[in-house]
Amino acid sequence: MATSLNLCNIAMIILFGLFVRYDDESDAHWSEHKHKNNITSDIENDFYYRYPSFQDVHVMIFVGFGFLMTFLKRYSFGGVGFNFLIAAFGLQWALLMQGWFHSLDPNDGLIKIGIENIINADFCVAGCLIAYGALLGKVSPVQLMVLTLFGITLFAVEEYIILNVLHVRDAGGSMVIHTFGAYYGLTISWILYRPKLDHSKNLSGSVYHSDVFAMIGTLFLWMYWPSFNSAIADHGDGQHRAAINTYLALAASVLTTFAISSLSAKKGKLDMVHIQNATLAGGVAMGTAAEFMISPYGSLIVGFVCGIISTFGYLVITPFMEKYLKIQDTCGIHNLHAMPGVLGGVVGAITAATASESVYGHEGLVNTFDFEGNYAKRTPATQGGFQAAGLCVALAFGIVGGAIVGFILRLPCCWGDPSDENCFDDEVYWEVGLISFLFTYFQL
Amino acid sequence: MATSLNLCNIAMIILFGLFVRYDDESDAHWSEHKHKNNITSDIENDFYYRYPSFQDVHVMIFVGFGFLMTFLKRYSFGGVGFNFLIAAFGLQWALLMQGWFHSLDPNDGLIKIGIENIINADFCVAGCLIAYGALLGKVSPVQLMVLTLFGITLFAVEEYIILNVLHVRDAGGSMVIHTFGAYYGLTISWILYRPKLDHSKNLSGSVYHSDVFAMIGTLFLWMYWPSFNSAIADHGDGQHRAAINTYLALAASVLTTFAISSLSAKKGKLDMVHIQNATLAGGVAMGTAAEFMISPYGSLIVGFVCGIISTFGYLVITPFMEKYLKIQDTCGIHNLHAMPGVLGGVVGAITAATASESVYGHEGLVNTFDFEGNYAKRTPATQGGFQAAGLCVALAFGIVGGAIVGFILRLPCCWGDPSDENCFDDEVYWEVGLISFLFTYFQL
Amino acid sequence: MATSLNLCNIAMIILFGLFVRYDDESDAHWSEHKHKNNITSDIENDFYYRYPSFQDVHVMIFVGFGFLMTFLKRYSFGGVGFNFLIAAFGLQWALLMQGWFHSLDPNDGLIKIGIENIINADFCVAGCLIAYGALLGKVSPVQLMVLTLFGITLFAVEEYIILNVLHVRDAGGSMVIHTFGAYYGLTISWILYRPKLDHSKNLSGSVYHSDVFAMIGTLFLWMYWPSFNSAIADHGDGQHRAAINTYLALAASVLTTFAISSLSAKKGKLDMVHIQNATLAGGVAMGTAAEFMISPYGSLIVGFVCGIISTFGYLVITPFMEKYLKIQDTCGIHNLHAMPGVLGGVVGAITAATASESVYGHEGLVNTFDFEGNYAKRTPATQGGFQAAGLCVALAFGIVGGAIVGFILRLPCCWGDPSDENCFDDEVYWEVGLISFLFTYFQL
Repeated sequence: MATSLNLCNIAMIILFGLFVRYDDESDAHWSEHKHKNNITSDIENDFYYRYPSFQDVHVMIFVGFGFLMTFLKRYSFGGVGFNFLIAAFGLQWALLMQGWFHSLDPNDGLIKIGIENIINADFCVAGCLIAYGALLGKVSPVQLMVLTLFGITLFAVEEYIILNVLHVRDAGGSMVIHTFGAYYGLTISWILYRPKLDHSKNLSGSVYHSDVFAMIGTLFLWMYWPSFNSAIADHGDGQHRAAINTYLALAASVLTTFAISSLSAKKGKLDMVHIQNATLAGGVAMGTAAEFMISPYGSLIVGFVCGIISTFGYLVITPFMEKYLKIQDTCGIHNLHAMPGVLGGVVGAITAATASESVYGHEGLVNTFDFEGNYAKRTPATQGGFQAAGLCVALAFGIVGGAIVGFILRLPCCWGDPSDENCFDDEVYWEVGLISFLFTYFQL
Repeated sequence: MATSLNLCNIAMIILFGLFVRYDDESDAHWSEHKHKNNITSDIENDFYYRYPSFQDVHVMIFVGFGFLMTFLKRYSFGGVGFNFLIAAFGLQWALLMQGWFHSLDPNDGLIKIGIENIINADFCVAGCLIAYGALLGKVSPVQLMVLTLFGITLFAVEEYIILNVLHVRDAGGSMVIHTFGAYYGLTISWILYRPKLDHSKNLSGSVYHSDVFAMIGTLFLWMYWPSFNSAIADHGDGQHRAAINTYLALAASVLTTFAISSLSAKKGKLDMVHIQNATLAGGVAMGTAAEFMISPYGSLIVGFVCGIISTFGYLVITPFMEKYLKIQDTCGIHNLHAMPGVLGGVVGAITAATASESVYGHEGLVNTFDFEGNYAKRTPATQGGFQAAGLCVALAFGIVGGAIVGFILRLPCCWGDPSDENCFDDEVYWEVGLISFLFTYFQL
Repeated sequence: MATSLNLCNIAMIILFGLFVRYDDESDAHWSEHKHKNNITSDIENDFYYRYPSFQDVHVMIFVGFGFLMTFLKRYSFGGVGFNFLIAAFGLQWALLMQGWFHSLDPNDGLIKIGIENIINADFCVAGCLIAYGALLGKVSPVQLMVLTLFGITLFAVEEYIILNVLHVRDAGGSMVIHTFGAYYGLTISWILYRPKLDHSKNLSGSVYHSDVFAMIGTLFLWMYWPSFNSAIADHGDGQHRAAINTYLALAASVLTTFAISSLSAKKGKLDMVHIQNATLAGGVAMGTAAEFMISPYGSLIVGFVCGIISTFGYLVITPFMEKYLKIQDTCGIHNLHAMPGVLGGVVGAITAATASESVYGHEGLVNTFDFEGNYAKRTPATQGGFQAAGLCVALAFGIVGGAIVGFILRLPCCWGDPSDENCFDDEVYWEVGLISFLFTYFQL
């Protein structure tokens, strides 16, 4: 593991040395750039439009995803720790991969990075962290590094096809991030199926305080999701509207999650697994449409429906998938990312297809869907079709990519993955103190 | 519970569909609005003035209040979970209620929402979460929903009277939020008095790690309070000054809290309950005066005094209230919100009454107190009087409203509230694992 | 303790009353200031450039440092609680001390404070919190107050010499904050050496959940470090570049920390102590150079090297220092702050010395290094020399200041510090419930 990490790091340094430089707004030539472009104030630097949202997204990636995965009684170190590792690795690789596709300066062949690139790198990483959710506790750190390396690469290609070739809008990534990431992870999990996983059954649950830790992750994801969906939306009304729509959809999801959870369980008791996860479904499902004029009640409807679907998924679909489809999904990413992601893509396509100048205004329509240049003549209806095509691309990349990477991870090789008895146990990869003995002994 | 939640949600969707639209700055017509009003840059969108503060406030509502209420050894799920539920419900209802009073577009009878509305919705919710603090562990989720429904409604009316009819300034809500919320909750708690609450005495304390969890709530409230008090203050110096004043008052409260806590307890030991709560009193008390020219040392004095009063409250007043006034106040909101809130109203009235052009400048005085239009001739002294009147309105709404809602919650009805033996126990509403047995058995 | 705290607080109120006022941008005269200086928009108020970064720094100080110190099994209250106390005290004193040196208005002899002052006060406090890291669990709150009082004073003088007299650039404080703070703490710890500290050996480790709590601190420090290094950098490209460089260096540190940790430990297992600390080394080391044109790959190299050095420090140097140099360093600040801080100073000096107009542009070079007024003729090479001199000043202040304060803290006096048997035990200063008995009994 150490060798591969150091090799990765040295490779990054060399590649960054060859390819990566500052962009106009982060370079010391900014003051000259200002004069040249008649920019009158430093506050027009894109940094001030996007940095607060970037920091919120950054918290979602490291604390949000990280702590959401601490819910297992004996895998909290692995949940938050390996999340930390692969996110820190992935963002470097993402800056390169996304840079080649999106930020290459044709004049000198160099990638020019600024605030938008580091937000996009965090987004790109999110796809791999979602995939990790399905595999939590069952794979080794080296396998996770491989998953991330390929995942980022696939992501960058998929994103290029969807956003640039098809000219699809997906500011919060319902398709690009969530659909892709979830099916990528589920396919890998399907290929790495462990028939005897119940040997580590006594470790696959939570304890009281590990559930409270997981709520830290849930809440930071929930609170900052408006920043996630608005971080790279258009300046002005685009970011503003994306934040409001996401805020509303998330609020609606919370209510339906509590409702369905109490309906279904024994004696009307609530289940922390639902609260920790399904409350977030509204944010996933608004990833595409958040910047559109979906209107406040539209956002509420999306959140309402997603909360129901997602909680229902935890109750019915996850056990079904494990039993009949042989897909073991530790965190239930099918319910939190796959279904709401697909739904988000569909909602986005419909909202785009029904857009009109009477609602957006002429200029607003052009700005929102970027109907400029080669796309000046595209109509909302056509755009809706392309949005739907984008969803298919994301699905295809997730499933095919996941199949390839899954087979690689099954190759006989020294991956260091845990035996069936040792799944969900930090003991395998971490130095854990005496108390571990008590935990295991009492099978808490 | 499920039925009522789904009904609420569907009602919200219908009402939002009928009444709520985007405002000028979040609508796709923003670019036309810019041209019309000679706005030269997207950065002038109110989003960029307030969004960072909004996110901080959002964290306070969900992580701050939520984790502050995890301190009980066996009610951490209920603390953070029900806080999540009622806040997510309340903010939807608040957008409607506050919208009707404050953001109704007279041209089309629709509510137009933007960033300021969602901050205000979070503020409105805060009032109900404060009330929840007094009732923590003793009421059912359905009761909490009713408390929130009425609480938000009362809040919106009270706020309209104070801010619009009386033209009182209260950017951080010492009166509107804290005084109202605290007396609302205390009155309800008084009506729902449980003489035999000591039957669940063994669950009404904390354990080591639940106290550490509560510190997460404390610190996020403490750190982001400058954003709370400055979030809807005037652009420019107003927000700037509100943040600095709050920062200072909070710092002073920490010192006096530690001082009084160590003075009073056995052998000079510190009590986590004080540190978790009384350190925040300075923020509450600066809610009205933060945007005024109270001057840095004035802020320190307010924080200093409040830290003393609040810690003293935990030591003396809470036990007294429980024994003689029959008010059971789980989180001690009387010490953290009621007393500092009233003090904050008084400080605000005095600071306003003593304002002068020599300190504020002519333009500064007009801007700070909004002495324009119908109020162009109001003097600072008169303003001070109205500020005091505002405090009385907040008190009246809290007590009368609390009495009404308290009686409703006592009606013989299937509220599902816990028996005296089961107070402060997550077991009643949540699926809790095996370890719960150990906890209860050893009475930790 | 109570008396000293109240005296401090009253002294602060008097001193603030005599000396501290709002600056132009937080005073109600801002609207007049705008007219006078042809400022067209409120968004040009420095508040909007720096407030989001301020809040991130604030979180680092209170949650970041605070929770990083909760890792001990029985000293979590002391870690987060005393951190809270001394930070809240220190920032008040820092506003005064730094104000006298940096923000004194020559016209009226008053300190004028705004957003930059409160960021700097938080920075100043960070130095003392670093020093606390070496002493965690071994000193009393009164000793910590004295350490802070002197530490802030020394910091302000040192900072004045480095930034103003030597005209050195150090936006993120590799030298001013980290080098100074670390050597200050280490020298004090050396003087307060406890030969029999192993009497409390059974409490000097972590338990499973205390390690998870510490990860909250680690992650908030890690995520917000880009804000730390960019908070007071130049508007525009300066802040933008500082954030990107720090982001990259931190990502690289994570990879090398995992690599070295797994290489070194038994059976390739990871050690939480390394992950909690050494992953942050890249942020420390970029404190000086972050705003320079160190280039993205330069940042990666710095992070790469620091991750190795810092992890290696935990493995080899800390035990060596404890055994042979008699320096007991509870949190390993030598590895996290001292070595990376010195390295950061050296990197800054080299980057400055090699700066050129071809890379920065003429205007960029002048802006970045502030080659204006008296310093208009300084060359990058000379600047590099002064940067190195600044590092020496920070070291000297840390060691000499630490020696003086260390001797003061050893004076026979009623400090209330714990006996060797009671180190690392919250029981001494906090009311801890029944469960403490179980902890101690089972020696968990």
